[in-house]
Amino acid sequence: MTSPATTSSFIVGSGADWAAAIESDDELEAIETDALVNNGESVGQFWGGGTSLPMRQRKSQQQRSTVTVGVADVDLTGGQDGAEHQYADFDTIDWLRDIGRHRRRNREVQRRRRVNYRGRLAAAFDSVSGWLCVGLIAVAAGLVAGVVDIGTNWMSDLRSGICVEAFWFNKEQCCWSANDTGFDDEQACAQWYTWAELVGNKNKDAGAYILRYVLYVFWSLLFALLAAMLVRMFAPYACGSGIPEIKTILSGFIIRGYLGKWTLLIKSVGIMLSVSSGLSLGKEGPMVHMASCCGNIIAHLFPKYGRNEAKKREVLSAAAAAGVSIAFGAPLGGVLFSLEEASYYFPLKTLWRSFFCSMVAASVLKLVNPFGNDHLVLFYIEYNSTWSVLEIGPFILLGIVGGVFGAAFIRANVWVCRQRKFGRLGQFPVAEVLAVTCVTALLAFPNPYTRMNTSQLIKLLFSKCGPEDVNELCDYKRNTTNDFSGSAPAGPGIYSAMWKLLLAFGFKIIVTIFTFGIKVPSGLFIPSLAVGAIAVGQPCINSGLYAMIGAAAALGGVTRMTLSLVAIMLELTGGLQYIVPLMIAAVTSKCVGEAITKHGIYEEHVRLNGYPFLDNKDEFTHTTIAADIMRPRPGEPALKLLYQDSMTVEAVERLLTNSDVNGFPIVVSEHSHYLVGFVTKQELALAI
Amino acid sequence: MTSPATTSSFIVGSGADWAAAIESDDELEAIETDALVNNGESVGQFWGGGTSLPMRQRKSQQQRSTVTVGVADVDLTGGQDGAEHQYADFDTIDWLRDIGRHRRRNREVQRRRRVNYRGRLAAAFDSVSGWLCVGLIAVAAGLVAGVVDIGTNWMSDLRSGICVEAFWFNKEQCCWSANDTGFDDEQACAQWYTWAELVGNKNKDAGAYILRYVLYVFWSLLFALLAAMLVRMFAPYACGSGIPEIKTILSGFIIRGYLGKWTLLIKSVGIMLSVSSGLSLGKEGPMVHMASCCGNIIAHLFPKYGRNEAKKREVLSAAAAAGVSIAFGAPLGGVLFSLEEASYYFPLKTLWRSFFCSMVAASVLKLVNPFGNDHLVLFYIEYNSTWSVLEIGPFILLGIVGGVFGAAFIRANVWVCRQRKFGRLGQFPVAEVLAVTCVTALLAFPNPYTRMNTSQLIKLLFSKCGPEDVNELCDYKRNTTNDFSGSAPAGPGIYSAMWKLLLAFGFKIIVTIFTFGIKVPSGLFIPSLAVGAIAVGQPCINSGLYAMIGAAAALGGVTRMTLSLVAIMLELTGGLQYIVPLMIAAVTSKCVGEAITKHGIYEEHVRLNGYPFLDNKDEFTHTTIAADIMRPRPGEPALKLLYQDSMTVEAVERLLTNSDVNGFPIVVSEHSHYLVGFVTKQELALAI
Repeated sequence: MTSPATTSSFIVGSGADWAAAIESDDELEAIETDALVNNGESVGQFWGGGTSLPMRQRKSQQQRSTVTVGVADVDLTGGQDGAEHQYADFDTIDWLRDIGRHRRRNREVQRRRRVNYRGRLAAAFDSVSGWLCVGLIAVAAGLVAGVVDIGTNWMSDLRSGICVEAFWFNKEQCCWSANDTGFDDEQACAQWYTWAELVGNKNKDAGAYILRYVLYVFWSLLFALLAAMLVRMFAPYACGSGIPEIKTILSGFIIRGYLGKWTLLIKSVGIMLSVSSGLSLGKEGPMVHMASCCGNIIAHLFPKYGRNEAKKREVLSAAAAAGVSIAFGAPLGGVLFSLEEASYYFPLKTLWRSFFCSMVAASVLKLVNPFGNDHLVLFYIEYNSTWSVLEIGPFILLGIVGGVFGAAFIRANVWVCRQRKFGRLGQFPVAEVLAVTCVTALLAFPNPYTRMNTSQLIKLLFSKCGPEDVNELCDYKRNTTNDFSGSAPAGPGIYSAMWKLLLAFGFKIIVTIFTFGIKVPSGLFIPSLAVGAIAVGQPCINSGLYAMIGAAAALGGVTRMTLSLVAIMLELTGGLQYIVPLMIAAVTSKCVGEAITKHGIYEEHVRLNGYPFLDNKDEFTHTTIAADIMRPRPGEPALKLLYQDSMTVEAVERLLTNSDVNGFPIVVSEHSHYLVGFVTKQELALAI
Repeated sequence: MTSPATTSSFIVGSGADWAAAIESDDELEAIETDALVNNGESVGQFWGGGTSLPMRQRKSQQQRSTVTVGVADVDLTGGQDGAEHQYADFDTIDWLRDIGRHRRRNREVQRRRRVNYRGRLAAAFDSVSGWLCVGLIAVAAGLVAGVVDIGTNWMSDLRSGICVEAFWFNKEQCCWSANDTGFDDEQACAQWYTWAELVGNKNKDAGAYILRYVLYVFWSLLFALLAAMLVRMFAPYACGSGIPEIKTILSGFIIRGYLGKWTLLIKSVGIMLSVSSGLSLGKEGPMVHMASCCGNIIAHLFPKYGRNEAKKREVLSAAAAAGVSIAFGAPLGGVLFSLEEASYYFPLKTLWRSFFCSMVAASVLKLVNPFGNDHLVLFYIEYNSTWSVLEIGPFILLGIVGGVFGAAFIRANVWVCRQRKFGRLGQFPVAEVLAVTCVTALLAFPNPYTRMNTSQLIKLLFSKCGPEDVNELCDYKRNTTNDFSGSAPAGPGIYSAMWKLLLAFGFKIIVTIFTFGIKVPSGLFIPSLAVGAIAVGQPCINSGLYAMIGAAAALGGVTRMTLSLVAIMLELTGGLQYIVPLMIAAVTSKCVGEAITKHGIYEEHVRLNGYPFLDNKDEFTHTTIAADIMRPRPGEPALKLLYQDSMTVEAVERLLTNSDVNGFPIVVSEHSHYLVGFVTKQELALAI
C-alpha cells in the first residue's frame, strides 16, 4: 500500500537554484548616513502562509538615504548564473537566492575536496568554520561585556566620588578592606572621597547636601552630554536599544553600518556614560546590539557567512543569544530570546550554534569576572519557601496588572516617540537628552530608592530581610533579632519606605516613558523590571517573591516575551521553585497586553520607524489569492509588461518614464505571456 | 529604490489550495494490530532543502498490517474541492493539503461569523479552542502523572512489605509519625510489616536474609509478568519508551491506536508495574507517551484538531512538552524537549501552546502533590559553591566520557534489539521479560545501591554530606561533626561504598542495555542519569556537582539532547550556578557521541523499526535535481502516464496490472503532457 497523500504536494522551489555569485561589500561602513528613520511603506507579499519559511519579499519605497548600486549590468532574464548582484542599503534580502548560493558554494567545496589535498583541507576548515565563527563572536562579546561592566561600575561611582589612592578603582574595590559595600553613599571608607569632601566640605549639614545635589546633577548632565555628542558625531546608529533594528535585520533587511565597528565602539562607550548618568535605562538591550556588532564584524572573516546575507543571519541569531547571555548571565535565556523574540529563521542548527555561542560568552564573562563576585546570577534570591496552589490567583492578578501596565507604557512611549519624530522636539536631540537627564537627576536625588543604581534597587526588592539588614524595608518591630516570619508589626521605617517606594514607582514610569527613545544608548529591560518590582515590592510578607513575579509581569507586558522571559528571570534569580508562578505571570501579561495593544514595544518601534518587518508571529487568513492582485481591476490600465523578444531600448525608456510602478514582469513575447522574470524599475534604469 | 532581490522568489505552493474535506476515523482503535514493527523502506524526497518546511513525502512500501480505506471515490484530477480522503494506518500525512484544509476551514468560519449570531459564537469558540484543547490535555496529563506517581510509590513499597493498618498507604505515609524515610529497609516502623515479619520471621539471621531475597525476586517477577501480560494482551503499543514512535508520528506518520485509550490505560498500569519490578528503567519516557495519548484523545473533542492530522500534530507537540514537564517537574525543559527532540514542525504559536500546556500540567501535578513534599524539584541540590574556570577541563573530559559511553551504549543496545527483532529471542517476549527481571533482581538485591530505587540512588549521589548523614558515602574521619570541607581522610565505609558503587556501575550498564527494548513500558532517562552519576559520584570532594555533570553527559551521549538536557537538569536539581558546566558537558558529549555513532538512541530505534522518518536535523547536500529522477534513464521504459481526456477503464486496468510502480502522473492528453495531478496505484484500484 502506498500513501494516498501524495496527490497534492508539488512545490516548485524555483528560487533555490537561481544562485548567483554575488560580490557583497558590506564592509563599507555607512556612518555618514544620519537617518535611522526610514519612512518606507512596506509591501508584504506572502506565499504559502502559515509556515515559517522565509519567503517574504518586502520593498521600501521611499528612502531618505542615497543608495549606490555597484554593479550595473542587470540580468533581464531573472538572475541566471553569473548575474553579479549586491544588496543596497535598506534592501530586503532574497533568502531563497542566498540559500541557493550557499548550496552551490557547498557543492563546489565538496567537489574540490575530491580533487586534491588543499581542497580537502579547505573543506575541513569550511565544515568547522561555523562553530569557529560563533566561538570567536562569543569570546569577543564576552570581552566587550566585561569591559562595559567594569567601565559602568567605575563611572557610576565616579559620580559620587573618587578613590584617592588609585583613581581607576571603583568604590567597592577602593573600600575592599573597609567592607563597605552598602548602597548608601552616607557610609564611606577612608580611601573613598566624595566630591564634597574633596572640596573641603566634610559637614553633614544642609549646605553639604546641596553641594552633593548640585554635583550629582552636574555629573549626570556631563555624562549624558558626552554620550549624546558621541552618538551624534560618530555613530547615529548607536542610540536606543537596538533590538527593534536587530529584529528587522534578522528578518532580512539591510541597514548598512548598523552592526559596524564604529557603532560597536560608540555604543560601548555611550552605554557606560548613559547608565552612569543615572538615566532610567539599562545596558541589557544595548548588549544584544553590541554582541550582534561583534557577530557582524567577525562574520566578515569567514566568506561563507560574511558574503552571504542569509547565512550571516544565522550567525547573527547566535550573536543575539550571546548578547542576552552576557547581559543577564543567562545563557539559556539568551538562546530562547533569540528563538522567540529576535530571530526570524531559526532552524535547529542555529539553535545549537546559539547554544554554543551563549555558553562560550558566559564562560568568557565569568573569566573576566567584572563584578568580582565570581558568579553570574545577578539578583540571587535566597528564600526557599514553596508557593501554594492558592497563590495562583494573585499570580494571575499580577500578570493582568503587568499586561495592562505594559500596554499603557507602550502607548505612552510610542506617543512620545511620535512627537519626537515628527514634532519639533526631534530637531534638538542633544538638548532633549540634557533636559531629560536634568529632570531625572533633580527628581532622583532626594529619594534614596531612585538615587541608587536601578540594579541595586531590584536586588534590594527581590531579597528577604535577614538578621543583619538595617535598611528601612526591614524595620519590623521584632521580639528577637531572629524573628523573620514576617508577622511582626511594622516599624516607622516601613511606612517611610512605603511612601518613598510609591513616589519612586510614579517617577520611574514617567521618566522611562520619556527616556526610551532618546538619542543615547538605552535599554528597557532593567527599567521595566524595576517598575514591576517597585509596584509589588511593598514591604510585606514574602514580598521578594511577589516583587520578582511583578517584575516579570511588567517586563512581559512591555516586551511580550514568554519562554525567554521565564528563562531569563530564572537565571537572574536562581528561583527555580517559582518557575510555574513566573510562567503564569508571563502568559497572563502577554494575553492581557495583546488584548489591549497588539504588538510589543519592539514591534511598535519597528512600525514607528517604518521598517519593512513582516511579523512571523502573525497569522494570515486573507482570502485573496495572487491572481486577484495581479489582474488589474476594471478601469485600471493593463499590466505593463516587458517582452523578451521584441523590445527596443527606446520602448523600455518610454515605459520607464510613463509608469509609476516599481517594476515590470518580463514575458516571452506580446503573444505568449509566459513569465520569464521580473525586473525592478531601478535596476532597469541602471542597466540602461 | 526597490529591492533588486525580487527576481528569484517565486514559490508555487500548489498543495496549499488543494483542500479536501476529509473524514478521518482515527477514533478507531487498532489494538488488534500486533506489530509495532513496520519494515517499510522509507523513500524520502526533499524539496527546497535547508528550510524547516514540512514538504516531505514519505511512503512506506511494505506494510504488514491490513489497511482499510473507507471512502472509495478517488478524484483523478488531484484533489480539487470535495475529494473525500483519509489516511490509512502507516500512511504519511500530506502537510500541505492538511494546512490548506485548515485554511479553508478558517475562511469558512470567518465567513459564517459575518452571517449571524451563531456563526459569531462559533468563531469565538474556534479561536480559543486551541488553548482550551491544550489546557484540557495538560489537566489530563497532570492527573495521569499524579496517579502513576502515587501508584508507583505504593507498588514499589509493596515489594518490601505492607502497611498493616491501612494497606493503601505506602511506606512513607505509613511511617509518617515514626519519621522513618530512609532508603534502607532495615529501619522499619511499627505499622510497616515486611513480608518476612508477616510470616513470623523477625530474626536478622541468614535465614531471614534469604527469605527477604526470595520474596524480593518473587515480587519482581510477579510485577514484570503482570506488566508483560497486560501489554501483550491489551495494548502491544504500550511497550518501550514510546519516544521513537512519537518522533515518527510528529514527523507526519500515522500509527493508528498508538496514542489511543487502551494504550494510555495499559501503559499507565504497566509502567507502575515495571518500575516496581525493579527493572533498570524509568517512567519518564513513558510519561511523554502517556501525555501524547491524552493529547490525541482530547484532540478528538475538537474537530479543528481531531480531524486534521497536520493541526493535530501541533497539539501533540504541546502534549509531548507536558509529558516531560510532568515526568521531571521541568516545564521549561518540556518545551525545549518538544522543540529540540520530539517535534518536527514547531512554529512560534506551537511554542506558546506548549509553554502553556507545560505550565498547566506542572500546576496540576503540584496540586495532586504525589510525593507529598510540596515541590517539583526532584533531585534538589543544596550546595552553592561556585565552580572555577579551571574546572572547565574536567567538565569537557566528563563530556567526552559521556559521549563515548552514549555511543557504546547505543551500539550495544541496538545490537541486542536487532537480535530480539530478527532472532529467535523475539518470539518469546514474556519469557524474555521474566528472564531479564530474574537476573536483575538476583543481582540487584545484595548491593544496597542497586537494591534501592534508582531515583533515590541519583538523589543520594547528587547530594552533599551533611551533619546528620549516616550513610557510608559520608563516612569520613572528621575531627568535629561539623567538618565537611571534604579534606578529611576517608573512613572504612568510603572504601566499601566505592566498591559497591563500582559494581553497581557495571551492573547498571549491562542490565540497561538488555532492558531497553523489552516488551514492557520502559524509559531510558533515569537509567542513563544513574549510570553517569555512579561513574563520577565516587565519594570525593564536591562529588555531587561532578555526579550531576556526569549524569548529564551520560544522558546527553545517549539521547544527543543539548538545550533541553540542560534545562531538564537545571529544573531537576535547581543548580542554576552550574548552567555553564552543564552546557559544556552537553555540547561535548553530543559532539563526541556524533563522531562515533551519528544518531541518538531514539533515531537508531526509529531506523531499527523501519519507520519512515526523515530527520529534520540532517542537512542535504545532494546535487540531484528532480528532473534527474523523473526522466527515465536510457534503457528503462518510458514514464507511465494517465490521460485525462481519453482513457478507458479497460486501459487503466491494463496499466494497473502491467506496471509495478506506486502511482501514475495524470496529464491532460497524449499530446499535451501538462500535469494535472498524481494518483497512487492503490487509490486507482479502489476507485475502479
